[in-house]
Amino acid sequence: MTVLDVPSGLPAAIPTPGPGDERLARLSLNQWTTRRWGVAEAVEGCVRAGIPAIGLWRQQVAEHGLVASAKLVRDAGLRVSSLCRATGLSMPGRSAEDGRRAVDEAAALGTDCLVVVVGGLPEGSRDLAGARARVADALAELQPYARQAGVRLALEPLHPVYCAERAVLSTLGQALDLAERWPADSVGVVVDTFHVWWDPDVFRQIARAAGRIASFQVCDYLVPLPADPLLGRGMMGDGVIDFRPLYAAVHDAGYEGDIEVEIFNAEVWAADGSDVLATMMRRYVTEVL
Amino acid sequence: MTVLDVPSGLPAAIPTPGPGDERLARLSLNQWTTRRWGVAEAVEGCVRAGIPAIGLWRQQVAEHGLVASAKLVRDAGLRVSSLCRATGLSMPGRSAEDGRRAVDEAAALGTDCLVVVVGGLPEGSRDLAGARARVADALAELQPYARQAGVRLALEPLHPVYCAERAVLSTLGQALDLAERWPADSVGVVVDTFHVWWDPDVFRQIARAAGRIASFQVCDYLVPLPADPLLGRGMMGDGVIDFRPLYAAVHDAGYEGDIEVEIFNAEVWAADGSDVLATMMRRYVTEVL
Repeated sequence: MTVLDVPSGLPAAIPTPGPGDERLARLSLNQWTTRRWGVAEAVEGCVRAGIPAIGLWRQQVAEHGLVASAKLVRDAGLRVSSLCRATGLSMPGRSAEDGRRAVDEAAALGTDCLVVVVGGLPEGSRDLAGARARVADALAELQPYARQAGVRLALEPLHPVYCAERAVLSTLGQALDLAERWPADSVGVVVDTFHVWWDPDVFRQIARAAGRIASFQVCDYLVPLPADPLLGRGMMGDGVIDFRPLYAAVHDAGYEGDIEVEIFNAEVWAADGSDVLATMMRRYVTEVL
Repeated sequence: MTVLDVPSGLPAAIPTPGPGDERLARLSLNQWTTRRWGVAEAVEGCVRAGIPAIGLWRQQVAEHGLVASAKLVRDAGLRVSSLCRATGLSMPGRSAEDGRRAVDEAAALGTDCLVVVVGGLPEGSRDLAGARARVADALAELQPYARQAGVRLALEPLHPVYCAERAVLSTLGQALDLAERWPADSVGVVVDTFHVWWDPDVFRQIARAAGRIASFQVCDYLVPLPADPLLGRGMMGDGVIDFRPLYAAVHDAGYEGDIEVEIFNAEVWAADGSDVLATMMRRYVTEVL
């Protein structure tokens, strides 16, 4: 596995796209890709590299301060492509407060895209249908608040390997079945290549998602998965995903928004952030576009 | 995790069902569950425990000898619920010979159920659509031969976590789309709880599978999965699967055949085979029926 093809100071096999390169016009750094960077470093890294958008995470935003983060990205001229994330909707007795706070944070940061990772089974539970029903109820409760705030809830189906522990929303079709209860501009879906690449129904569902794609995230699926499957997300080109057909399908469905690179990977996290950005930009233009 | 709730010689919390118990009438030991046992030990173990059927694996049958294995199970009065497995249908340049040999072996063993695990992506390939197309072609080639031999091809969709490495057939719906190209008594599907439990469409697809369910396999889905996800199959009751709704759905779809317990699990494999059978029988009656 390559992870990073150009360690600091060595020449790249292909030139790294730089600021002003038209091909980067829709690229967004999901900040979990450079997890050790706080908001300030990530914003600075994007500006330096010529990446025009950033996907923020609530923890890092809280560490930097919500108002300060909002000012920082605005002053830097970056778009905020999404905020990650509202979660725990599948849990019984959950407080609705956290979801509303996430909506407020998204609005304050100037993004209309709040990623929703619905949560898995409660500890010790085998009631999958019950967990899925609670997700629908929680969304019904949160949606009017989000709509009023001008924030779209972006339902993210996760790979079925995460069903028990992270998200009982497992396919794009299931996410659309749920999203379609509300207007398209209020509840959308996330298409993340890692989560959907295996789905025999994915192209039909992406077409069906026209008007509801709130975010398109790219990263590769590594084989074999590491011991912690959460860290099996790789740099584009290091795994088994053929990105272009998925990119084309999302394009054909009318999506013109940002394309986030979101990688959970111990080696990527251990590497120098600027090197990660350089590799990410090269791989984005060679593997995705 | 419990794995085995009654080590040898200790009293069980509930009585272990024994020979003649009506509740065991459809129970089958998939012999991979007692992987260290050869065919002779597995057959003897089933007879001693009162398990009326066995699912055989080709490797073990080859080790014992095909004709000798067939005679052994016949003389023991056991049904052969399935033979595992034909594989590699997704691979380019594959020889058709192995599939035909698997069919011959199933016929010789007196089972009409040959489990087909179609295979993953070829090494270094990202062409998932191509791999899936090759599976369809390989089935078209094998089906007439199997039909003539009185053997039904049982397509087993595997959990999407195995898509790249083991089976590009990932959902029951996809398996049915494929199977429906041929008569129901010639190409069926396997419903394995581990592989399908997460699927939001599973109950609809099981109903659709009426007449095509060639095998029903049970085992639990462990959380967290171990480092090798292949070994994440647990004894019923040790994981997150609610078996009864799946059992009921398969019943409502008209399936009246054997119910195989197939567990890939390092701790189960390390345990005494007779203890594994005892735990398996207790868990079967308390968790599945």
